[in-house]
Amino acid sequence: MLESLKQAVLEANLDLPTYRLVTFTWGNVSGIDREQGLVVIKPSGVPYEDLKAEDLVVVDLDGKIVEGKLRPSSDTPTHLALYRAFPAIGGIVHTHSPWATSWAQAGRGIPALGTTHADYFYGEVPCTRLMTETEIKGAYELETGNVIIETFKDLDPAMVPSVLVNGHAPFSWGQDPHNAVHNAVVLEEVAKIGYRTFTLNPSSQPMDQTLLDRHFLRKHGASAYYGQK
Amino acid sequence: MLESLKQAVLEANLDLPTYRLVTFTWGNVSGIDREQGLVVIKPSGVPYEDLKAEDLVVVDLDGKIVEGKLRPSSDTPTHLALYRAFPAIGGIVHTHSPWATSWAQAGRGIPALGTTHADYFYGEVPCTRLMTETEIKGAYELETGNVIIETFKDLDPAMVPSVLVNGHAPFSWGQDPHNAVHNAVVLEEVAKIGYRTFTLNPSSQPMDQTLLDRHFLRKHGASAYYGQK
Amino acid sequence: MLESLKQAVLEANLDLPTYRLVTFTWGNVSGIDREQGLVVIKPSGVPYEDLKAEDLVVVDLDGKIVEGKLRPSSDTPTHLALYRAFPAIGGIVHTHSPWATSWAQAGRGIPALGTTHADYFYGEVPCTRLMTETEIKGAYELETGNVIIETFKDLDPAMVPSVLVNGHAPFSWGQDPHNAVHNAVVLEEVAKIGYRTFTLNPSSQPMDQTLLDRHFLRKHGASAYYGQK
Amino acid sequence: MLESLKQAVLEANLDLPTYRLVTFTWGNVSGIDREQGLVVIKPSGVPYEDLKAEDLVVVDLDGKIVEGKLRPSSDTPTHLALYRAFPAIGGIVHTHSPWATSWAQAGRGIPALGTTHADYFYGEVPCTRLMTETEIKGAYELETGNVIIETFKDLDPAMVPSVLVNGHAPFSWGQDPHNAVHNAVVLEEVAKIGYRTFTLNPSSQPMDQTLLDRHFLRKHGASAYYGQK
Repeated sequence: MLESLKQAVLEANLDLPTYRLVTFTWGNVSGIDREQGLVVIKPSGVPYEDLKAEDLVVVDLDGKIVEGKLRPSSDTPTHLALYRAFPAIGGIVHTHSPWATSWAQAGRGIPALGTTHADYFYGEVPCTRLMTETEIKGAYELETGNVIIETFKDLDPAMVPSVLVNGHAPFSWGQDPHNAVHNAVVLEEVAKIGYRTFTLNPSSQPMDQTLLDRHFLRKHGASAYYGQK
Repeated sequence: MLESLKQAVLEANLDLPTYRLVTFTWGNVSGIDREQGLVVIKPSGVPYEDLKAEDLVVVDLDGKIVEGKLRPSSDTPTHLALYRAFPAIGGIVHTHSPWATSWAQAGRGIPALGTTHADYFYGEVPCTRLMTETEIKGAYELETGNVIIETFKDLDPAMVPSVLVNGHAPFSWGQDPHNAVHNAVVLEEVAKIGYRTFTLNPSSQPMDQTLLDRHFLRKHGASAYYGQK
Repeated sequence: MLESLKQAVLEANLDLPTYRLVTFTWGNVSGIDREQGLVVIKPSGVPYEDLKAEDLVVVDLDGKIVEGKLRPSSDTPTHLALYRAFPAIGGIVHTHSPWATSWAQAGRGIPALGTTHADYFYGEVPCTRLMTETEIKGAYELETGNVIIETFKDLDPAMVPSVLVNGHAPFSWGQDPHNAVHNAVVLEEVAKIGYRTFTLNPSSQPMDQTLLDRHFLRKHGASAYYGQK
Repeated sequence: MLESLKQAVLEANLDLPTYRLVTFTWGNVSGIDREQGLVVIKPSGVPYEDLKAEDLVVVDLDGKIVEGKLRPSSDTPTHLALYRAFPAIGGIVHTHSPWATSWAQAGRGIPALGTTHADYFYGEVPCTRLMTETEIKGAYELETGNVIIETFKDLDPAMVPSVLVNGHAPFSWGQDPHNAVHNAVVLEEVAKIGYRTFTLNPSSQPMDQTLLDRHFLRKHGASAYYGQK
């Protein structure tokens, strides 16, 4: 069942320690089969070095376990909320990667400060509002998804494929699990460069809109001319 | 004698360079057999790459050497003081890991600034007061233990499994030597993220208490729902 | 055709991940055969681990593809502009190496703050002016080359073999592709040390001119006495 | 001739890249045979990966080459000045290690801020005064030695085995080449932790003298009780 998606989700999870995005088990990747409406996700708390394709859990979009002997990631309700709200995405990754998490803890979005950012994110990577006491005490992981969705009410998740959850850590997504992890790597790099830009020049301003357009559209959309396609 | 504890203490000591928590011999791990009241600890100044199980030293809770040809770590009296005062802990680790040591040198505790912290530490990782001249000139390593114990007079060491010794470096502990090192790795990560949070936003405030509760209790205690247990 | 130059360009490209100057495909190296007026450059968007000599693209100084099945790097017009304007250089490298990129995003040149800098750069590594809307919307990559050339109107590119493109990232060059990458490594190191110098002492001033002369001339020119030549 | 010293100097030089203290050839280690008054030093500009014992150069204390086909390090006159002035030292290392170099570029000594520092350096690691134009234009490398010696006129080089040359980089020394590199590693670590201490708490003060005494004397001198000796 969903063998190729499982393989993709497995590889994407194993990429997290390779790219140094995680300490211990602090991260998880999922992928979705849109036709069947099924999501494959990492089990909770299993070390990456022990993870096998058969450990992955299959859930439907309501969170019902369809296959798997282990508990799914405790962040599963967040993933499912994003899949329901963002129909164009095919993979999601959550980590506590240290640079992006530092911005999340500081409660600040990462402004577009240069072309590295503009090549992947069409503007600021936003930081969510603080969650309310009711949200935290309620269905916390679902509400985490909801506050992300609220943050994107005027944003296209395909144009800004990452978010910082305030006081918590980042989520990234993409057309598939591999692409989601790719975006998480870029986010961490952009968070690092942005941190250093601000500490070198605290009054740094977001980059020029024309330059942002040029770089984003050089890599995305019908007029893209980067790469071999 | 205590072969499985020795093996655990050996592996935990060898994890220190693996997790990049130590330079040269700047760290040591111990473990306790509570039934026999005996502690296994690293010998002083022996490089990790040469360390073998038979080099480990067995001492009783008063510091008397029960087995071993080498001198125990010069920090042994600190370890023993903590074992006597904190009956629930089974392993202790001391390092000069650079991020946590920077906070210790700055004389500041690490506030709970986000969920990474809240998953392991139920509030600020405290920094001890400065030691007095009498304490430093006296039984210094024992007094180091005492000032840690004083710092925890209103804290549960199981809820906050690390401390910063002012002007010195961190100690972490856990239910066994492996878990103590796990907490030392987390402390270093939290110290790093916290540093960057403060330099990005110097007026950062400790996180919301409700969110702290939610994350700590998600991983600890009767209502925990993280992992496979 | 140009086999030894291709081999040199291939090796120089493969050095980029070795020296940790690139994430994913964020960089490219080229080399020129001055007699034939032909440039060998990395194809666009090809991962370094897959790159082979036969993937490299040969273009003339007007950008016409002379050999190769793949598209050349999207930055090719920048490289060509520099080869046309700086006749003494034989290799060019572009990366988004994080320390140098942080200075570029901050819009600041890197002053000569010490002898590490002076051994390679005869004065500040300059940062270009911001590009105009017309330049960005026009032949953007060519104009990137033009704004670099403008920045060097009173500078000798052999004396200062790197530049920061404002809001973007660095370019470095040298007598051949290998030397260009060598200079890119030095630039990243100098950017890192310079960042820390400024955050330790925000009022740091450029170094003494006499010391700058001494170190630069110890390694360059007729009176050099460093190394075995 | 001096085979065991050559082997020690070779190994100490090869330790520089292992401990990540050098980029390219930016460092050199020497050792002295006090009975014969001969110094073994790295040749200038030779990459570490190519370095062999027979490449090392033997010079007398006046700088006359006694053995060796290659030119000695351009920093040889600095090494020799230190050997002449500090009779107790047996090995010297010079690097541009980035953390220590940042302090040197900022023109600041590294204060004793904690026990990591106190275990090796009995007080601040000093930064030399700026060199004069006459010194720089004259016998520059010899004068670099002289300004270090001037800085230590009231300091014991055995108690503070490192110095920062203002606007340049560090020199460390020890009882032999291996110990000199050991101290250079510690210096880099102390420079890193000290930087972070100051950026966390810019008003950090040097540590208490009693604690400094306790830690330094725990490891050094007749009353030392660290390690197995």
